[in-house]
Amino acid sequence: MAGPQAAQIALVCVGTELLRGQVNTHQSWLSRKLQNAGLFAGRECTLPDDRRLIASQLRAWMKDCDALVVCGGLGPTFDDITREAAADALGRRMRYRQDLFDGIRRKLGRLRMPVPEENKRQAWVIDGAEVLENHAGSAPGQILRWRRRGRPRLMALLPGPYAEMAPMFERDVLPRLVASLGRGRRAAHWVVHLSGIAESAADERLAKVTAMAGPDLDFTILSSAGQVDYHVTAAGRDPRRVAARLSLARSRALQAVGDFAFGEGEETLESACGRALRAAGLTLAVAESCTGGLVGQKLTAVPGSSDYFQGGVIAYSNALKRRLLGVRAATLVRHGAVSAETAQEMARGARKAGRASVGLAVTGVAGPGGGSAQKPVGLVYVAVSVGAKTVSRELRLGGSRELVRARAAARALHLLLLALRGVKGRANRRHLL
Amino acid sequence: MAGPQAAQIALVCVGTELLRGQVNTHQSWLSRKLQNAGLFAGRECTLPDDRRLIASQLRAWMKDCDALVVCGGLGPTFDDITREAAADALGRRMRYRQDLFDGIRRKLGRLRMPVPEENKRQAWVIDGAEVLENHAGSAPGQILRWRRRGRPRLMALLPGPYAEMAPMFERDVLPRLVASLGRGRRAAHWVVHLSGIAESAADERLAKVTAMAGPDLDFTILSSAGQVDYHVTAAGRDPRRVAARLSLARSRALQAVGDFAFGEGEETLESACGRALRAAGLTLAVAESCTGGLVGQKLTAVPGSSDYFQGGVIAYSNALKRRLLGVRAATLVRHGAVSAETAQEMARGARKAGRASVGLAVTGVAGPGGGSAQKPVGLVYVAVSVGAKTVSRELRLGGSRELVRARAAARALHLLLLALRGVKGRANRRHLL
Repeated sequence: MAGPQAAQIALVCVGTELLRGQVNTHQSWLSRKLQNAGLFAGRECTLPDDRRLIASQLRAWMKDCDALVVCGGLGPTFDDITREAAADALGRRMRYRQDLFDGIRRKLGRLRMPVPEENKRQAWVIDGAEVLENHAGSAPGQILRWRRRGRPRLMALLPGPYAEMAPMFERDVLPRLVASLGRGRRAAHWVVHLSGIAESAADERLAKVTAMAGPDLDFTILSSAGQVDYHVTAAGRDPRRVAARLSLARSRALQAVGDFAFGEGEETLESACGRALRAAGLTLAVAESCTGGLVGQKLTAVPGSSDYFQGGVIAYSNALKRRLLGVRAATLVRHGAVSAETAQEMARGARKAGRASVGLAVTGVAGPGGGSAQKPVGLVYVAVSVGAKTVSRELRLGGSRELVRARAAARALHLLLLALRGVKGRANRRHLL
Repeated sequence: MAGPQAAQIALVCVGTELLRGQVNTHQSWLSRKLQNAGLFAGRECTLPDDRRLIASQLRAWMKDCDALVVCGGLGPTFDDITREAAADALGRRMRYRQDLFDGIRRKLGRLRMPVPEENKRQAWVIDGAEVLENHAGSAPGQILRWRRRGRPRLMALLPGPYAEMAPMFERDVLPRLVASLGRGRRAAHWVVHLSGIAESAADERLAKVTAMAGPDLDFTILSSAGQVDYHVTAAGRDPRRVAARLSLARSRALQAVGDFAFGEGEETLESACGRALRAAGLTLAVAESCTGGLVGQKLTAVPGSSDYFQGGVIAYSNALKRRLLGVRAATLVRHGAVSAETAQEMARGARKAGRASVGLAVTGVAGPGGGSAQKPVGLVYVAVSVGAKTVSRELRLGGSRELVRARAAARALHLLLLALRGVKGRANRRHLL
């Protein structure tokens, strides 16, 4: 799929601010969207608002790319010069379109925003361009086409703000890229999410599946704190064969990863927990020490989480562990705040304090200070209390304070999921996958 | 500073995985480090592990750049081909250095890691290269130099993993870039952090300061949820004049932004809160509804926060607001969970439950569901209780659920800071800046 016959797509991000310390998230978002459609970003560049430099870079990449997706620099101000640079690179003229400016004026008027003369710049269109409507802002997009060496080529100019770029790309640009460069091929994408396993270990378990890679089957493994994602994209001309190819890779991958898999597609650890709690008709409360609220924050990132999440206690001090969670002084003295015993009492305490059916707790040494020979930085205990059972796990996590906390939160949610798999739900108790 | 005489520095990130959906954070990190040193990233590209493409892109940018910083592709496996591509672009040979391989073997041996034959690839050095030691991994870096049109040029090859790249860049590459491209110029950087103000409003207030920009003074404004950062870099040959230039810009900027400024340099909202609490000898507890733990997570991201942060209650359900925080049923019925009254009772409740001297509370409608005509999505109340006073603020926040929550957390911390400014501390009560 990424073989020699694959279409070369280049991403070009324009904006001096992107070279002044702002994180460029367009690149990863566009790469992922292309990949899910069986296309691939073959290279990317970020350029300042410099007309000559943009034009020369576009010209260079037009020579060996099939498509260029250009984001940013379509705004109304003097430093928005992507339109001009693209016209230079293509050797085409631009024309002012009064109808476009009238449209912009109507749109901004509805939002009761003033329409400065500057916005006229957005009504200039490169000769031969197809204009793409912007439903979230004023700058229209443009699609330019040409042929080179007998192959159709395409350049898309998109606005820079995510809220304008993303829907325009998904609605107008991606289908045209697929139609123009897909050569009658379709693609289907599947992703499985794993937790409780390192990327290298997941890679090893999945080696035989990944070995199936070929011109019509592509695999990518990506990891973030406490989570590993395995992406599969199948492609081909015959939709049934594409589906069969993907289905075979999916079932082999699921078999290879076993219980480490917690969800597919858009699922996150926290949404998977929510789904499992809902399915079992259970409610949850948390008790957090070293994560300081991160587990609660993740759980409540899911819209509608108030259906099953009660809340909990951030028990950063030992006094709060005792008073709000009922952890016994003797336990803290004998085993310490970072211990399996304290984690278990915290989980039971969260359940009781939150009047919830399940309690989830985390306690540990996040670092950089506070570690000792017996309790080193990275030592974390997670515990779940459900039904008559309270289980805990000892974790030895690496990395910075931030990473230890992120990994601890992910492993806590994963332990919750594993515990819920064993619960008889009132609604249904299907396996999570 | 970014004028025609400014040195052109290009960033090149190598790795197919960066084009498969991984977020490229090297670009923003390197841009910022360069800027703080009075240098600027003039362009960036991300390339797959394709020797021919990397070589041709390096060759193209060597023509009009003074320096290229290349990250990634120095690993031991067959797809790590940055060394070879750079040699191609420079038209130089490579030599195998047994002494380097012996060093790699010793290093991995100490970590009790096996040393495959593959690692020999990392002991190849481009002719004329200065070798940079890697203290965090096996791949050495390389610095290549040449002259073009009478000017010294430089290419740095750095390993891809952040933990290896970052220290090597700061220790070995940045000083060489400054020495080689700075032309005897030094730079000094200052940043001020604002909260409670929109980027556009901050921009307006700072317009007169920004108008001081010139070849020796550069300004950048960057915003994230609930925070705006204003960066100033001064440069020049005479260190005293550089310092004077920066100091003038600093005092004008501070005057322009007034109370919106909460810190300078490495300060964050949460570390500023910690510093203020410590200075006043106060402790803090939180009560979070719509943020679900985010405020606590931010506060505890600061190492040593257990000195002043007690913990708190994630009161997602009304039952928990009543039981753990003592919010009165009548308040919830009369004013609703999202109201100034509830926020204030939560703040007082947090203080009491956490036996803390200060209570901080957030309650709101994060969306996307749960909004109504009276209580729309984005309506948030933050409250602080300290001494005899409890104050609250009504906020109307825009954006997605994630953004509303992030903004609400930032505004809560900002309100805490403002409240602490009015407190007579036992230690000292200097103004926060």
